[in-house]
Amino acid sequence: MEREPTLRLRVFDLNCWAIRYLSKRRQERIRLIGDTLRRESFDLALLQEVWSEQDYSDLRVKLASCYPFSHYFRSGVIGSGLCVFSRFPILDTLLYQYSLNGYPYMLQHGDWFCGKSVGLVIVKISGIIFNVYVTHLHAEYCREKDAYLPHRLVQAWELAQFIRHTSKAADVVLLGGDLNMHPEDVGIRLLRGWTGLRDAFAEATHFEGCKNGCTLVPDNCFTDSSELLPFPLGIRIDYILYKATSSFTVKCEELKTTTGPAPGVDIPFSDHEAVMATLHIQRQGQAEGATLGTADAALADVVTEARTEVTVGLRAAQRQRYSSGRMAVLALLLLLLQAVAALGTLAGLGAEQPFPKLSFCLLAFLALGILVLSTGFHLFHTMEVKMLHGTEDQMWMALQALQKHP
Amino acid sequence: MEREPTLRLRVFDLNCWAIRYLSKRRQERIRLIGDTLRRESFDLALLQEVWSEQDYSDLRVKLASCYPFSHYFRSGVIGSGLCVFSRFPILDTLLYQYSLNGYPYMLQHGDWFCGKSVGLVIVKISGIIFNVYVTHLHAEYCREKDAYLPHRLVQAWELAQFIRHTSKAADVVLLGGDLNMHPEDVGIRLLRGWTGLRDAFAEATHFEGCKNGCTLVPDNCFTDSSELLPFPLGIRIDYILYKATSSFTVKCEELKTTTGPAPGVDIPFSDHEAVMATLHIQRQGQAEGATLGTADAALADVVTEARTEVTVGLRAAQRQRYSSGRMAVLALLLLLLQAVAALGTLAGLGAEQPFPKLSFCLLAFLALGILVLSTGFHLFHTMEVKMLHGTEDQMWMALQALQKHP
Repeated sequence: MEREPTLRLRVFDLNCWAIRYLSKRRQERIRLIGDTLRRESFDLALLQEVWSEQDYSDLRVKLASCYPFSHYFRSGVIGSGLCVFSRFPILDTLLYQYSLNGYPYMLQHGDWFCGKSVGLVIVKISGIIFNVYVTHLHAEYCREKDAYLPHRLVQAWELAQFIRHTSKAADVVLLGGDLNMHPEDVGIRLLRGWTGLRDAFAEATHFEGCKNGCTLVPDNCFTDSSELLPFPLGIRIDYILYKATSSFTVKCEELKTTTGPAPGVDIPFSDHEAVMATLHIQRQGQAEGATLGTADAALADVVTEARTEVTVGLRAAQRQRYSSGRMAVLALLLLLLQAVAALGTLAGLGAEQPFPKLSFCLLAFLALGILVLSTGFHLFHTMEVKMLHGTEDQMWMALQALQKHP
Repeated sequence: MEREPTLRLRVFDLNCWAIRYLSKRRQERIRLIGDTLRRESFDLALLQEVWSEQDYSDLRVKLASCYPFSHYFRSGVIGSGLCVFSRFPILDTLLYQYSLNGYPYMLQHGDWFCGKSVGLVIVKISGIIFNVYVTHLHAEYCREKDAYLPHRLVQAWELAQFIRHTSKAADVVLLGGDLNMHPEDVGIRLLRGWTGLRDAFAEATHFEGCKNGCTLVPDNCFTDSSELLPFPLGIRIDYILYKATSSFTVKCEELKTTTGPAPGVDIPFSDHEAVMATLHIQRQGQAEGATLGTADAALADVVTEARTEVTVGLRAAQRQRYSSGRMAVLALLLLLLQAVAALGTLAGLGAEQPFPKLSFCLLAFLALGILVLSTGFHLFHTMEVKMLHGTEDQMWMALQALQKHP
């Protein structure tokens, strides 16, 4: 097997939208996904938003014969939602939790509670070492005023850095996941430029599926089509990216997306379309990574653009840290003032007037509540500042390195 | 330079105990550390507990001529406290924040607020790629009843996994830091066994310093000697570990520790002693990592022992998650009961008795406070359970892999 000339690898990637109690027809869809994976026998299936461990276990039982190896990545309060099913033995795994992932107090968005991460599984197929990464980045709730852009950029940067540092012994690198970024967004350009990963959709010899490879389309019955009004064809935010790092070449022979309802039923697998790639891996030619150096100038521009957005986020986080800190100090002062008033009353001052116990108590609890909350906010935004600052520094280092190259 | 036969590398490692407002004579000691680093010109200085960015900046200015390259790792609320000074260019850096690191509500310990991490810097010296790791693990506050043991073991495991996955292209791996573990502790055995790292103290041809290489000694004027009563000679918790991963050999020619007061003054650098190693790196021989496989059986025992401790931690975390959840439910029930009582009063029921507004309000705020706090605890312990469970899984995978070997 070691000397096999060409390896054909079929990869399945899907954001499963399997949120307990919230996602519509969840169990039915998980069954459908399992049936399809079993029938189609891909080599690797990279799934996101499998939030319930029970769903994962059900899938594992169902897929035990055709995908005997699997891994579920645990993190955060709810879980990372990431899992991998593989026809080939998983040699090792590693989880990297992104340092920034939204705000715990944005309950309506809830990304913070998922502990968004990138999971790595290492598999060896026909003597070739594959580093397979699966991830899900912070959602974009409002494209016009995207408050989470700096966090998503920090995630894209950390993802790129994690891949670069952990893939040095890999022959082939694969990344699948819901990146929540359009193909031309700065985060995708940063990720691709800094890692040398190539986009299976752009490279595919043959493509079949939704127009422009879109994976969030208005036709999907689970999609809120009003959100997609500015994009009548839909958007492409789910990707399969790849590169070969030693003397291998990878070619994407075929890329497919699902297009609405799954075969034989009236519902699709998820609110996202699945991405399916057929890759050809050959042991020959020069390392593809070597082409990275030629685009240094363009890459420096992308890093600069990303760094500017991170700096904007840093300023906003500093302002929030300051205002929450100020609020905490004001609440503390109010509490101290009340303590003085209470002591004064106990000492007999102002005894001619009745002491307003109830409003006094209400005010004290209000001040205490504000103190606790704003201290919490202050600590959180201090961490945010630290991480944004750290990323800004790292990007600066990267720019220095890029500019030193000829 | 590429073909130089032997490289001599001098490494300095110190937990600087530089906590703003809390550490005694901090600025004086930071100046002392800077003076010594400048005078002695080591090749690499790995520092921990440099919590203040100002202290780092002061050191950087002072050391600019002899250590022109440096990096400060930012994380958590206070910061990771980790930094590296290098005579040679730093090519790249990466930070990995441990997924578990004590409890935010253990304010008197405060480890949670530091965002304990491992920092990686990559340097190339005479054509040899060095992956240099610096870290600081969770402190041990009570050895007899160490509540943080499972967290420290998760950290030791994540540290080992991070080193294994990121060092595959390195010629030499160096790790320096305060591991807060005695040499025979399960965490150290796990880290050394799973990475193949060797202990500079145990391997040194020549040793000079505190007896048994101790780095926390009762003679140090900043140490609380009552805490070291069971260990009259002190304890060794600061380490320099190393290995060569390709066809290089590393030998520790000399290991030194400081012994109390710094030269010419009456105070030591810190409450820890510094560790200084002189390493010889030679481009010859077989990869040292190859010896790892021979000790698989012993390593499996260590992983099993560590996994047992993690399981104990998991059970405790599950109990805490359950009791905090139950407390939240009780508080919620109390609030609902109060709401019913208030509505009843508004509807004119029990109008013959005066409504106890003050105690009613106090009780409501108490219930609300308990609800908020116990929900917070519940979320935190849910995350803890997830991470302990994930580590247990990973260790199980490692055991399977070890047992498959002959």
